[in-house]
Amino acid sequence: MTVSAAFASDNAAPVHPAVLDALIGANADPVSAYGKDPYTEHATQRLRDLFASPDAEVLFALTGTAANVIALSAATRPWHEILCSDIAHALLDEAGGPVRISGAQLTRLPSDDGLIDPAELERRVARRGDVHHSHPSIVTITQSTENGRVWTASRLREFVDRAHELDLLVHIDGARIANAIAALDLDPAEAIADADVVTVGGTKNGQMFGDAVLVRRPERFDGIRFVQKQIGQLASKQRFVAAQFEAMLTDGLWLQTAAHANTMAARLSRGLTAMGLRLAAPTEANEVFVQLDPAARERISGYAVHQPDALSPVFRLVCSWATTEEQVSDVLQRLRG
Amino acid sequence: MTVSAAFASDNAAPVHPAVLDALIGANADPVSAYGKDPYTEHATQRLRDLFASPDAEVLFALTGTAANVIALSAATRPWHEILCSDIAHALLDEAGGPVRISGAQLTRLPSDDGLIDPAELERRVARRGDVHHSHPSIVTITQSTENGRVWTASRLREFVDRAHELDLLVHIDGARIANAIAALDLDPAEAIADADVVTVGGTKNGQMFGDAVLVRRPERFDGIRFVQKQIGQLASKQRFVAAQFEAMLTDGLWLQTAAHANTMAARLSRGLTAMGLRLAAPTEANEVFVQLDPAARERISGYAVHQPDALSPVFRLVCSWATTEEQVSDVLQRLRG
Amino acid sequence: MTVSAAFASDNAAPVHPAVLDALIGANADPVSAYGKDPYTEHATQRLRDLFASPDAEVLFALTGTAANVIALSAATRPWHEILCSDIAHALLDEAGGPVRISGAQLTRLPSDDGLIDPAELERRVARRGDVHHSHPSIVTITQSTENGRVWTASRLREFVDRAHELDLLVHIDGARIANAIAALDLDPAEAIADADVVTVGGTKNGQMFGDAVLVRRPERFDGIRFVQKQIGQLASKQRFVAAQFEAMLTDGLWLQTAAHANTMAARLSRGLTAMGLRLAAPTEANEVFVQLDPAARERISGYAVHQPDALSPVFRLVCSWATTEEQVSDVLQRLRG
Amino acid sequence: MTVSAAFASDNAAPVHPAVLDALIGANADPVSAYGKDPYTEHATQRLRDLFASPDAEVLFALTGTAANVIALSAATRPWHEILCSDIAHALLDEAGGPVRISGAQLTRLPSDDGLIDPAELERRVARRGDVHHSHPSIVTITQSTENGRVWTASRLREFVDRAHELDLLVHIDGARIANAIAALDLDPAEAIADADVVTVGGTKNGQMFGDAVLVRRPERFDGIRFVQKQIGQLASKQRFVAAQFEAMLTDGLWLQTAAHANTMAARLSRGLTAMGLRLAAPTEANEVFVQLDPAARERISGYAVHQPDALSPVFRLVCSWATTEEQVSDVLQRLRG
Repeated sequence: MTVSAAFASDNAAPVHPAVLDALIGANADPVSAYGKDPYTEHATQRLRDLFASPDAEVLFALTGTAANVIALSAATRPWHEILCSDIAHALLDEAGGPVRISGAQLTRLPSDDGLIDPAELERRVARRGDVHHSHPSIVTITQSTENGRVWTASRLREFVDRAHELDLLVHIDGARIANAIAALDLDPAEAIADADVVTVGGTKNGQMFGDAVLVRRPERFDGIRFVQKQIGQLASKQRFVAAQFEAMLTDGLWLQTAAHANTMAARLSRGLTAMGLRLAAPTEANEVFVQLDPAARERISGYAVHQPDALSPVFRLVCSWATTEEQVSDVLQRLRG
Repeated sequence: MTVSAAFASDNAAPVHPAVLDALIGANADPVSAYGKDPYTEHATQRLRDLFASPDAEVLFALTGTAANVIALSAATRPWHEILCSDIAHALLDEAGGPVRISGAQLTRLPSDDGLIDPAELERRVARRGDVHHSHPSIVTITQSTENGRVWTASRLREFVDRAHELDLLVHIDGARIANAIAALDLDPAEAIADADVVTVGGTKNGQMFGDAVLVRRPERFDGIRFVQKQIGQLASKQRFVAAQFEAMLTDGLWLQTAAHANTMAARLSRGLTAMGLRLAAPTEANEVFVQLDPAARERISGYAVHQPDALSPVFRLVCSWATTEEQVSDVLQRLRG
Repeated sequence: MTVSAAFASDNAAPVHPAVLDALIGANADPVSAYGKDPYTEHATQRLRDLFASPDAEVLFALTGTAANVIALSAATRPWHEILCSDIAHALLDEAGGPVRISGAQLTRLPSDDGLIDPAELERRVARRGDVHHSHPSIVTITQSTENGRVWTASRLREFVDRAHELDLLVHIDGARIANAIAALDLDPAEAIADADVVTVGGTKNGQMFGDAVLVRRPERFDGIRFVQKQIGQLASKQRFVAAQFEAMLTDGLWLQTAAHANTMAARLSRGLTAMGLRLAAPTEANEVFVQLDPAARERISGYAVHQPDALSPVFRLVCSWATTEEQVSDVLQRLRG
Repeated sequence: MTVSAAFASDNAAPVHPAVLDALIGANADPVSAYGKDPYTEHATQRLRDLFASPDAEVLFALTGTAANVIALSAATRPWHEILCSDIAHALLDEAGGPVRISGAQLTRLPSDDGLIDPAELERRVARRGDVHHSHPSIVTITQSTENGRVWTASRLREFVDRAHELDLLVHIDGARIANAIAALDLDPAEAIADADVVTVGGTKNGQMFGDAVLVRRPERFDGIRFVQKQIGQLASKQRFVAAQFEAMLTDGLWLQTAAHANTMAARLSRGLTAMGLRLAAPTEANEVFVQLDPAARERISGYAVHQPDALSPVFRLVCSWATTEEQVSDVLQRLRG
């Protein structure tokens, strides 16, 4: 029996047709390599406009891990400390890349499904200035979080303001930021508050490759383009990354695809709770975390699903731009037995 | 006036139609992410077969710099020394990435356009074992070289054998290895001799993205997949990298495109020398290095061309799979004045 | 008013007279630099004998932080994870040095004053093998701990055995290992169980400089002497470090000085509890952690004492080889008011 | 037969009596650790005064390699390039430490026994700003050089000025700076010109341990004290390093000892040339480099001497504060046969 990857992750999904069209459209004449091309220029401007960041520097990386590594490394010196939540992708799912490349210590803070209480920041800066102790300089949060939660605009604003008061930069890992924006139904700029650097995910939202880094305070990210180059993230044929962003960001397509994924997740979530299953986290974007006993898991053995912690019977089902109502219904029906 | 990038670099070229077709073809159902997909399996096997390396481990990176960084970092410990030629891409054109990520010292050896005399290796290992001195462990060479030269099979074999006798691993930066193989008209396996790790370039030879790392002695590259992940080179939708390789490697397409580029370069080279211009290096693959005085350079101001050293009037013209006879003729005609 | 450093730390103490004598005694003829001297040979053998580790490699570093950095860096690759307690010196008081130099992620485990439950190790290795996640390879513990606790021989043995079963190396930060051995009244070899690498502190126990690294499984610490050299810890005049160790390790002097420090701490601790003050941790070696209200702290304002956490009214008083009964009595008397 | 280390290196020499006296003198009461002690304060001020650098920040490291690593790492970001001579200690004799810790590329320039022509700097900055290429930010030179040559005041001033015009910082590795100052018979400040950071060697000039880092433009060495701590170079009992410097820097003792070493080297050098032996470099400070055929080398087999390059019959004889006329005469007499 073939196992379907339909709910395995949003990066198991195929590429949106508009993205393929854009790739084909960008494949005309020779153009200058390494981002000196009109596609890059357009996509850069589009990102600045959408996030109301006219002075932002924009880089295009090839994966979300890369975008995080670039942002965090350029923000830090190797005696700094990076703060993150206890479920941060940068902590648990990037093979230690942010630590290796930055040389900085990465310290986890307790969180509510990735949502960190601003009060946690305060005690982390208590020893700042002491040469025996790493210097905390940046906090990274994820929007939407690794557990599928969404920072509300007010909560995010409060958090970022508190961080800034404590002289901490704020990085948003936005691998799924489109899902957060769609869920909040807000202007994109409000979904990032006054964060200093944001990685804007494309890969999980219909693109083939590409996560952008929106550097909103370039003066604090000196040398970031060198970092990008050093880890092999400056694509020579960058037009093909930029063209994908341009396609998705035009006419709000990126938010439509994200909203669809959210809608499918909500439907799935409602179906699961309706049959008495217990969610491990509220479903606020496109990811559903549900407890399944072995029998239930067996019933949907035709689907590959991620189990974040081998010691806990919680399974993650992710919806994407390509998830269909039929797929959702099929999962629910199988679980009903 | 628009400036044409037709000879700026082979990475300024568009993508080969077969590659676009492969991307479209791979865009069907959801498939597992991070390389657990049939496209990766096929392309992996294809590379093993072509290079007669049945036990090789194969990784797919997104850029040539990344492929080099992964290979060199995984081969070394941070007290090692990496040897390279005085014009190595890893030395001059990767922003110091190989040094930063590996922590190893990178030492340049004199060369003839990137071709290193094996005798150079000997004196570099004289202090091995002395804890005051970096431990030389690997030498990286480029096939075809940064100056467009090709290691002949016998010369390469002699070099690799000498390196191995001195207990040095050998890395081949094969960003343009297809051009070398096509120029040598050899079995691919002979164009890499018994090298320990080879990066097989796709981007410069018609692909959109993708350089593979062929690890022929996996036991000496412990943890290489972690390095790949850490620097954001493990594409979640890796099928789209693998599918490109599969398309190019099928029915020898990669060698046909490379041979075409070589042919165009040879034609250009002959035309330049016929009009009395002086080459800075023999044209052996798809790159032509020619001395141009300011007036001559001005005559082809409609073409962007790379000047490797601002203090020297040598210009590089690169041909690609997409270079046409008309473009070559146009350059020659303009230079004739 | 002069503030006394008598209880500030054991590294505020002067140097033991026997150490000074040894320095003077070693200052004769020219001898080979970088450890090729008879003092190094003797001290090396002494450490091997005392810790029943005839095959151990021994290095001499100049500080405790250096010894930890060398041991942990040589044990790890930059995609590894180092486990430690939540109060580890390597985590909180080495400015991020172990992370910067190793490139490895450093993960804190909950502990009881630095004593870690072996069960904590198990869940940390659950994702081992997954390239998205750092590879846990070593756990570091401190004997005696940063809160002045001592691992009993049985507890330590159980911990080390469990770690080894899980294929984790064990590092002991022994900056105060003499105090632990003296407190346990055991053979030194039993106070380290089957740990793979131990830093043996000298500086805090009467020496001027010097912490040794006892590498009990040299095959797992390939290149460790390069690391020592790279961070400037290979003293050219190493005889003067080795001679200090030789002096202290002869006729059990190191354990007598440590036992004296422990005795003074016990006396201080008893005095504090007798007057109703509350200890923050049991006094098991030479450090006393006591809660003091502002008035009490003010009464001993003539003494510099360390407050580990600015948000908590716990103060640390450390006794050394040089602490006198009069000093202890003076502190107690002042606190009694 | 015992082999004498009298000419093996100046770090094979014993410690000057004044240094031992200072250590004994500093061994009184407990004092605060980590440099918060009066000895550190005095030695700091002494160094500032001697080098006419009232605003300099002063750090004390334990070895010369450490001092270099700290200075170069704090000056650079990991995409920078450090320039050095082709015989630099930092390049050849620090096991790659400066590269590993800084992450920066280290590029050797041709030199005349370590004396670099300022014109060499110019071509190294030609690609600055190009993200594909490391960013040259600092040049390190050695005074006196590894081949025993001395930068004259005018030559040094010209070099430093040219470097500054090119926006390069200048580091002086002053492991033997006392020998250079004594040889030049100049005010110390003139022997460093307007260099940005200078490591001032103590170990090779009569001390037991200790090389200072004189940071003359602290604003360009942000975080340097963290680097010092991270690599274990912040001695807890730093008073014992500072007291050594204080002893040597008082009443010009450091220059008297250096002048003596130079005088002995000059005497040895004259004797060697008088008997027709060929020097490999002019003797300008305390090191003599002489070509010896196997028979000659055999005649002084009672002395350990360094052979920098195993493939070249050049041997180095180093004089120190402790070298006697008798020792020099003995070497000469044996060579005469």
